Order: sequence, then structure tokens, then C-alpha cells
Amino acid sequence: MLGNCIENVRKCVPLIHNITNYVTVNDVANVLLACGGSPIMSDEPDDVEDITAICGGLNINIGTLNSRSIEGMYRAGRRAGELSHVILLDPVGAGASALRTNTAAGLMKEIRFTAIRGNISEIRTLALGSGTTKGVDADVADAVTEDSLDGAVKFAKDFAAETGAVIAITGAIDLVADAERCYVIRNGRPEMGRITGTGCQLSGMMTAFLVANPGAHLEACAAAVCTMGLAGEIAWGRMQEGDGNATYRNRIIDAIYNMDGQTLDAGAKYEIR
Amino acid sequence: MLGNCIENVRKCVPLIHNITNYVTVNDVANVLLACGGSPIMSDEPDDVEDITAICGGLNINIGTLNSRSIEGMYRAGRRAGELSHVILLDPVGAGASALRTNTAAGLMKEIRFTAIRGNISEIRTLALGSGTTKGVDADVADAVTEDSLDGAVKFAKDFAAETGAVIAITGAIDLVADAERCYVIRNGRPEMGRITGTGCQLSGMMTAFLVANPGAHLEACAAAVCTMGLAGEIAWGRMQEGDGNATYRNRIIDAIYNMDGQTLDAGAKYEIR
Amino acid sequence: MLGNCIENVRKCVPLIHNITNYVTVNDVANVLLACGGSPIMSDEPDDVEDITAICGGLNINIGTLNSRSIEGMYRAGRRAGELSHVILLDPVGAGASALRTNTAAGLMKEIRFTAIRGNISEIRTLALGSGTTKGVDADVADAVTEDSLDGAVKFAKDFAAETGAVIAITGAIDLVADAERCYVIRNGRPEMGRITGTGCQLSGMMTAFLVANPGAHLEACAAAVCTMGLAGEIAWGRMQEGDGNATYRNRIIDAIYNMDGQTLDAGAKYEIR
Repeated sequence: MLGNCIENVRKCVPLIHNITNYVTVNDVANVLLACGGSPIMSDEPDDVEDITAICGGLNINIGTLNSRSIEGMYRAGRRAGELSHVILLDPVGAGASALRTNTAAGLMKEIRFTAIRGNISEIRTLALGSGTTKGVDADVADAVTEDSLDGAVKFAKDFAAETGAVIAITGAIDLVADAERCYVIRNGRPEMGRITGTGCQLSGMMTAFLVANPGAHLEACAAAVCTMGLAGEIAWGRMQEGDGNATYRNRIIDAIYNMDGQTLDAGAKYEIR
Repeated sequence: MLGNCIENVRKCVPLIHNITNYVTVNDVANVLLACGGSPIMSDEPDDVEDITAICGGLNINIGTLNSRSIEGMYRAGRRAGELSHVILLDPVGAGASALRTNTAAGLMKEIRFTAIRGNISEIRTLALGSGTTKGVDADVADAVTEDSLDGAVKFAKDFAAETGAVIAITGAIDLVADAERCYVIRNGRPEMGRITGTGCQLSGMMTAFLVANPGAHLEACAAAVCTMGLAGEIAWGRMQEGDGNATYRNRIIDAIYNMDGQTLDAGAKYEIR
Repeated sequence: MLGNCIENVRKCVPLIHNITNYVTVNDVANVLLACGGSPIMSDEPDDVEDITAICGGLNINIGTLNSRSIEGMYRAGRRAGELSHVILLDPVGAGASALRTNTAAGLMKEIRFTAIRGNISEIRTLALGSGTTKGVDADVADAVTEDSLDGAVKFAKDFAAETGAVIAITGAIDLVADAERCYVIRNGRPEMGRITGTGCQLSGMMTAFLVANPGAHLEACAAAVCTMGLAGEIAWGRMQEGDGNATYRNRIIDAIYNMDGQTLDAGAKYEIR
């Protein structure tokens, strides 16, 4: 069933507008092409509204935000919202600086995100930062482990209910939740943490999956997470002596390029809670 | 004969100033090094005039333009023009946003470009945008195919005549034209479209070929286009099971690195109309 | 003994704040991960103080400086200085434009750098630009060769004495000096010059080595230089027919990923003068 989601990306070839950081932008573009989408990058405030209007989805990543690109995020987000486009937020480094925390919180106030993807620290920061009197329970541990899983699942569902977005919390165990259901995903390899930007790549890919699967946003996000994790496993199986993180990076993108629905369905490891 | 053009790049080691997008900039730099040139990147208005003065050519790519870098493009372009340097325009996304269309058109009014390289949509946008009463015939189809080839060749020659630039329109069939002659080039592989930035890479490389071949600008551009396409073919021949677009990207750059004049002459597939 | 330095990086996992150019930033991030460190990138003036405060070291690279990021460099540098963090300067292109020369000189006036890494031209520019009546002797040739080695070693030591920084001058022969001692290092391959950004990568890695080896800054810098050069040698040994600079780039990062203290001690080629 998740396999359909990637097949839909390949059929639909969604055009994705990315306002993303300059560290991993090239990999985001190549991953979007690998999974069957098509990337455009633009962060200039006077350019983003036109660009987002011709796209199907918008991926906002605050990894190397600046005063100009922040304005671009707001203007693109508002325009994409008017057009009812898919909009994803990747709050890179929320909690690490006031500017990042405030920018993520500010964007969440003005823009209705279809999905939010980050690590547990970033998502907790958003949940606390956007806290109201009836705010979600952000009393969740710093890492999602088998021991802390129940609390983390509840946290993800609650935050999804509060925001109306699919919440994807990625780490050793990945959680993808809406208000009712949470995919607990156990694909991937720890060595993926030794490559820069697998999270950014996933956010770009997830945006494409969302656009190509309009009736099934939760499944689309889960399928994107499984695709990335499974690609990490397949790529690891192709590593040879002397290879390291540069080769691993390339092989992961290659594995996404070669992923089909059948392979994804066979390799996806998840339960729904 | 085209083979001489790449040999001249390797002898001359032209230093190329690139104002280019942050998506593909690393690949542009490595392709310039692969073909025998040397890259410098600078887009700050207060920096570009000094930098362009020590270079042989200037490559302007508007792929992630912003208000600051646009000013950098104008200042670098004017200075390079005063110095009679080679100047190339890659109008990425012209037609997709007003800012991109207007920036490309504005640059063309102030700066005399040696060459302009883009896809058919971008080049059509420029031709229409710069249209005067005696404007070129831009009534050309959206893709250059065997059926639309005659019209596209005429369009390329007419736009070359109007602008005084070599016009390179890349796609499944590539056209490289001055006012009199048009190279119709059939190198390359469709899978190159699944890699981000092969166009940007080509623009960087074409600038180096132009600098190293001052008496033969049309041939220089055609040689650069054939080099990129042939590298795509050679690289495809080295692909193994499980490889995808990340590996293909690396192998294309590797193939450029290993390209010599003899290989290029043997593999270039073109006719002159 | 240099081998301990990389082992310390792997134990310490230093978090490095990079204000670096957008050409090579992805490789800098992956090299930091490869050697055992962890990268963060931020250049927005309103973001850098928070970010640098949570890091162990700051790597300032002026390769694609602009008016906004220059302010970011000053603010990050001042804050890192207050916190007694390791701070490294990579003066890319100093001497090639007034803005680059003045920015590097201005930063050196306000910020006490732990180390400065560049090629001989860049370091000479800094030495001349910061010249006072008792300025260092910058009468050194344009390349460090066996013939010019004595003068270059004296120059490096003198400039280290004047600045209080470890001075790393990289080229065919690498010099790493404090006021008293100079490592003369003969690792590396000439083909490394055909890859963009090996210098930038080294600067990022050197910052991590400095943070992880607080009592041995000279050795830490020498170990980073030897690691990069030795990785270039190991990677070259893995090159196959048809490979070029794109594959070489990946294999160098892979070799850093797999480098351990024993391999480094066995392969480091240096003398101390």
C-alpha cells in the first residue's frame, strides 16, 4: 500500500518549490529527481510567489535562514496557502537559536502546514513554543526509544491534532502521525547520521509524496520515511571495503532512484499505533 | 576540429568567474576543473568587479537570483564588458517568474553577451521579451524535435543575428547557432535530465571553451555541448546494476575529466545547417 | 603521536560552527562528519551568536563573502572570542579583491584566531596587509618549493609569532607553524588541485582537530593536514580506469571516514624544523 505512494510520485512528477539551506540543496534536488519529482529552488521574496504558483508543493527548510530568505518563506507560504498547495516545514535547528525558534513558530502561526518533519528536539521546541493553555503535552524524552515510545506516540498525535499537520519525527525510530494514527517505522541505518542532509532530503521527498497522494497524506509521509530508510539499508548492502560516507550518500540517492512500489512494500518495516 | 577546442582549454586553463545558483555551484566548479579550466565564484556587488577583472570569462546564471546578486550580475557584466571578456548568460527559469524574465531581459539590454545558453522555453522567453518591431520569429514549438527542427534552426539563427551572441538551445536535440550556421547536435542521453544541473555545468564549461578559443566562438560552444553529451554517453556505459542518478552525476564529471580531443572528435554527432 | 589527534576528534565529536562559502559547503559538512566532528552552518548576523555559543569551534571562510555574511563573521567571531572558543580563518581569495583582503585584515584586527589556513599567496597578503613597522618578513616566493623552503619556514614562524595563531600554508609542500616549530609536510597528490574545495574541507577539519586537542594546537593542525594529504594518497590508490575528479572527491572523503590513528601515524610524512 505504501508502494502505491511512490508509484504515484513517478506518474505525477510533482514540481516542488524548495526554500532550503545551501548546505544540502544539491542533494535535495537530486533526491527529488531520484524519487520521480522535479525541483525548483527560489528564496528571493520578489521571486517566490511566481515560482510557488507554478508548483504543486512547497518545502520550507530553515537550515541556513537569513533575513531575506525568511521574508521569502512567509511570502511563498502565504501564496501557497491561498492556492491550497501542500506545504511542509523542516524546522532545522529550532531550539538551537532564538531566530530559528521564532521563525519556525512565526511561520506556524501564519501558514497552515500539511506536514512538519524534524528530529524530536526540533519538534518539541515547536510544541512548546506554540504552547497555549491547552497546549500539547511535550513531556517527552530527548530520544525516541522503545522505552519512551508510548509517550512519544501520544505526543506526536497530540501535536498533529493541535496543528492539523502530519507530524514526522525522525531518528533511530521514526514516527509519522496524524491525530488518530501513528506509523512507527524501523527502517534505516545508524550510519545515515554520518551523512549531512538525509533529513533535508527526506523533507523534499516527503513534499513530493504529499503532492502526488492528495487523498492519503499520512500514508504519503510514512511512505517517504520508509523509502529513505529502506534506501539507506539497500545502499549499505552495496558498500565495499574502503567506502565511507561520501559513497554512502551517493548510493542512498541511487537506491531511491531505483526504488519501486514492490520493493518498498517488501522492505517497509512499520506498525500502526 | 571540435577536439581542438577542448585541447585549447587544457592548454589555456582559463579562469572563469561564475555568478551562479547555489544548487549546482559545486558541480559547476568541478566540471570547470574537469575540462581544464579554473573556477572562481563571487556574487557580492562590492567584490565582483575585482574578481571578474582577473578572469578570462564571466558566467552569469540566474538560477537562484536575489536582489543582491542581481546587482552583482550587472556590475560584473559591465566590468567584463569594458574588458572585452567573454560573457555567457544562462537564463534559468526565464518565463517562470517575472523577476527572472525581467532580469534576463535587463541584463541583455546592458550587456553584450558572447553566448546565451538555455532550454527552448527560456530562449523563447528572451526572444519575445526583447522583441521589437523587427523582432525575431519566436513562433517555434515547445520542444526541438525532428519535426520542428527547421523552424527551430531558423529561430536560433535569427536570435543570434539579433543579439550578436552564439545561441545554444539544449534539449533532446541541441542547437548551437550564430547568424549564419547552426550546429544540430545529437549527443547525450535522456537520463541526464534526471540529474540536477547538467545545464548549469554546461554553461560553466562553455564559458571556458569560449575563452580558450577566441577565434572560433561558434565551434567552441558546439564543442562544449558535444563534450557534455558525449560524457553523458560514456558515463552511461559505465553504470552498473543498482547505480542511479547520484553515481551518474559523478561519472559524467569523470568522463569530462578524461575527455581528450581525439575522443571528442570520434564521438561528436552533429551536422551543420 | 599525530594519530592521537584524530582519535581525540572521534572521542570528542566537536560541534563546529561554519561560516563558509556556498561552493564547497556540502563537502565541508561531510568531511567534518567523516573525521568524527559535527557541522552547523549559519551566517545570518542575527543567528550566529546563538549558534556559535553551543559549538566548540568556529570556522570562518570568506570564499563567497557578502555584506550580510561579513557582519555574521564579525559577530560570530566576537562571541566565540568571548567564550574562548577555537577560531580558524580561511582567507579564500585574499589578494584577489579589495573586499576579500580588507575583510580578512579587518577580522584579524578584531578577532584572535587560533589558526589561519591558506595558500602562500593568501597568507602573504595577510602578512603584508597587517604589516607594521616591525612587520614580518614577507619576502617569500610565490610557491613553497625545496629551494624556497628555508625562507618560507621562517616566514611562517614569524607570522605565527606576530599573530599568535598557528599558521598553515598548504600547497605541494605544506607548512604548519607556531613561533617556535614548523611541520614541513609532504603528504598529498597534485591531482587534489583538480577538485574544488579540498582547502575548505581541510579548514573545517582543522577546526575540529583544534577543538578536540586543546593542549596541542600545533600538532592538531599538523595532524589535520597530514590526514587530508594521506587521504588523497589512499583515495588515489583506489582510482580505477575512467574515474576522474568527481570520484576522487568522494574517495578522499571516504578515506577520511576510514582514517584511524594508526594509519595516520604510519602514513604521515613530515619533518619538524
